[in-house]
Amino acid sequence: MPSEFRLRRRVQFYETDAAGMVHFSWFFRYMEEAEHALWREAGLSIHPPDSDIGWPRVAASFDFHRALTFEQEFDVWLRIAELTKRTIRYSCLVSQGDTRIATGRLVIACVRRRLDRMEAMEIPPEIAARFQVATD
Amino acid sequence: MPSEFRLRRRVQFYETDAAGMVHFSWFFRYMEEAEHALWREAGLSIHPPDSDIGWPRVAASFDFHRALTFEQEFDVWLRIAELTKRTIRYSCLVSQGDTRIATGRLVIACVRRRLDRMEAMEIPPEIAARFQVATD
Amino acid sequence: MPSEFRLRRRVQFYETDAAGMVHFSWFFRYMEEAEHALWREAGLSIHPPDSDIGWPRVAASFDFHRALTFEQEFDVWLRIAELTKRTIRYSCLVSQGDTRIATGRLVIACVRRRLDRMEAMEIPPEIAARFQVATD
Amino acid sequence: MPSEFRLRRRVQFYETDAAGMVHFSWFFRYMEEAEHALWREAGLSIHPPDSDIGWPRVAASFDFHRALTFEQEFDVWLRIAELTKRTIRYSCLVSQGDTRIATGRLVIACVRRRLDRMEAMEIPPEIAARFQVATD
Repeated sequence: MPSEFRLRRRVQFYETDAAGMVHFSWFFRYMEEAEHALWREAGLSIHPPDSDIGWPRVAASFDFHRALTFEQEFDVWLRIAELTKRTIRYSCLVSQGDTRIATGRLVIACVRRRLDRMEAMEIPPEIAARFQVATD
Repeated sequence: MPSEFRLRRRVQFYETDAAGMVHFSWFFRYMEEAEHALWREAGLSIHPPDSDIGWPRVAASFDFHRALTFEQEFDVWLRIAELTKRTIRYSCLVSQGDTRIATGRLVIACVRRRLDRMEAMEIPPEIAARFQVATD
Repeated sequence: MPSEFRLRRRVQFYETDAAGMVHFSWFFRYMEEAEHALWREAGLSIHPPDSDIGWPRVAASFDFHRALTFEQEFDVWLRIAELTKRTIRYSCLVSQGDTRIATGRLVIACVRRRLDRMEAMEIPPEIAARFQVATD
Repeated sequence: MPSEFRLRRRVQFYETDAAGMVHFSWFFRYMEEAEHALWREAGLSIHPPDSDIGWPRVAASFDFHRALTFEQEFDVWLRIAELTKRTIRYSCLVSQGDTRIATGRLVIACVRRRLDRMEAMEIPPEIAARFQVATD
């Protein structure tokens, strides 16, 4: 039962902006990449082709400490900080070696997708059983 | 029955890259923005919520003549170059005043979306009737 | 001296994801679009071609209340919540009519860009004088 | 002296659109990812921090044969098709096993970046010497 995932990643050119660094919106995508890799590690897909269960993002944030530039390698360390009946909260550290680049937070909720809306639901036990909260 | 659309657009910061100009992948999105605006002009949505008809891109290309930079305004002029039974071909000019920035081409095909695949189909007459080929 | 900006925007197709709604990373770009429009309203560019002053993002967050889907129109209401010697804090509401879609927050800092690093600096008075804090 | 690069890649969620497949604009980014990996393989960066040489895209195209969906793995095979005094032309095949997903083409030119414009120049011999044209 995984509780965290470490993703090694390299900055792509299209992720940089005219200030010469990674555009801040990309950190949210890096965090989600690590999340989906964590789910695969748990033997799951967060968006299987034939499912009506969805995981919309409820809240997302980042504090930015340093810049990343083209072709730099970095790590995205995603941890499950909290598991409730209906939500999962992750904490995230983007770093290069000992240097903290950015620290993030992501909360997702479990929903059933209806034709034109989403309905909050409890996380199915067979999914909840695949994860555990990270301990320090 | 519209045959073309002119979109006025401004370069957003997240569209620029570390070379200080718009990343080339964005021109394909600009072209598609103009396409969808053309469809709205024709009273249609290219992706209505309740339809199983889709319009995958069959071919797309751009020749790039000059760069665009942050906050510059530019025009995207999309024209219907050809209408066949199953496809629509557009030509596209991105410009600033008399200066040609890029010239593009886009071909889309009509498909019925099945559970796990797409099936080529003829363009429904009620859609084809909404457009006409641009004349010089 | 503007203290806020309201941006009217339409969801583009490339902003949607396989769950059929706008990918959450786009809200951070919407917020930044409104920010740069606010700066233009103040007679400024946040990234002039010939300047060594930069405005890196220090913190960014969103709480997501509802989904946006393809071609929907929405508003991005950005307000200056705080102006300090070295930072600007914005609050942001994404909405459709009376419906709250998402609420965000963005903090930026003023830096001088050196060859290989950024150096915190006070906001130049001629820039600070162009803005004011929004009042309720 | 490398003449080609094969990149193994997985579809990320933010690369999909509301039609449930990878948005076509991403293929141009996949192609560029493979290009930059090829340059690294040749011991080069296409955008070193301290260089005034740039490589703007002159032309880019893709023909799309099949769709890619979330989490699928695929290969991007980039080959140097032509090396002229001032340009490099690549051909690109995106595939899954024996299935062709898309075939692309990219032409880049060598320029010296001046303050406010780009000036065509011959490819420096120390760069040209690092690559060779792919043979069948």
